[in-house]
Amino acid sequence: MKKNDFRKNIKLTEPIFNKLKALMKVKDVKQYELIEILLDSYVTNKLSEKEREFFNYQMEQLEELRKEEH
Amino acid sequence: MKKNDFRKNIKLTEPIFNKLKALMKVKDVKQYELIEILLDSYVTNKLSEKEREFFNYQMEQLEELRKEEH
Repeated sequence: MKKNDFRKNIKLTEPIFNKLKALMKVKDVKQYELIEILLDSYVTNKLSEKEREFFNYQMEQLEELRKEEH
Repeated sequence: MKKNDFRKNIKLTEPIFNKLKALMKVKDVKQYELIEILLDSYVTNKLSEKEREFFNYQMEQLEELRKEEH
């Protein structure tokens, strides 16, 4: 992963950041890797069928935007 | 939540950020709220008992550090 790839910042409160940090130690992965694990796990296990369809639709929209920008 | 509370930055790649953004639209919550939902859901549902113990231990360590700093 190139340094240049990390172009998006998100801001967290200290308590939420600490939770993330504690979980990083448990799983022994990097920050961005953990965020992706959490996202994939939630999408797979916690979304209803309707929500997952809407999620995939949103992903397609964002992907099209990204293509237009680049 | 005060603006001042958001003191911790994390950097994401664009594909991971877009996944987060798509899921924000599904759940209609703010970025930091979604990260906390993802964390809590993962800790509750995906950690083994041993991992959860280690997670709680790490949380206590971080909490002590935080107290010393403030």
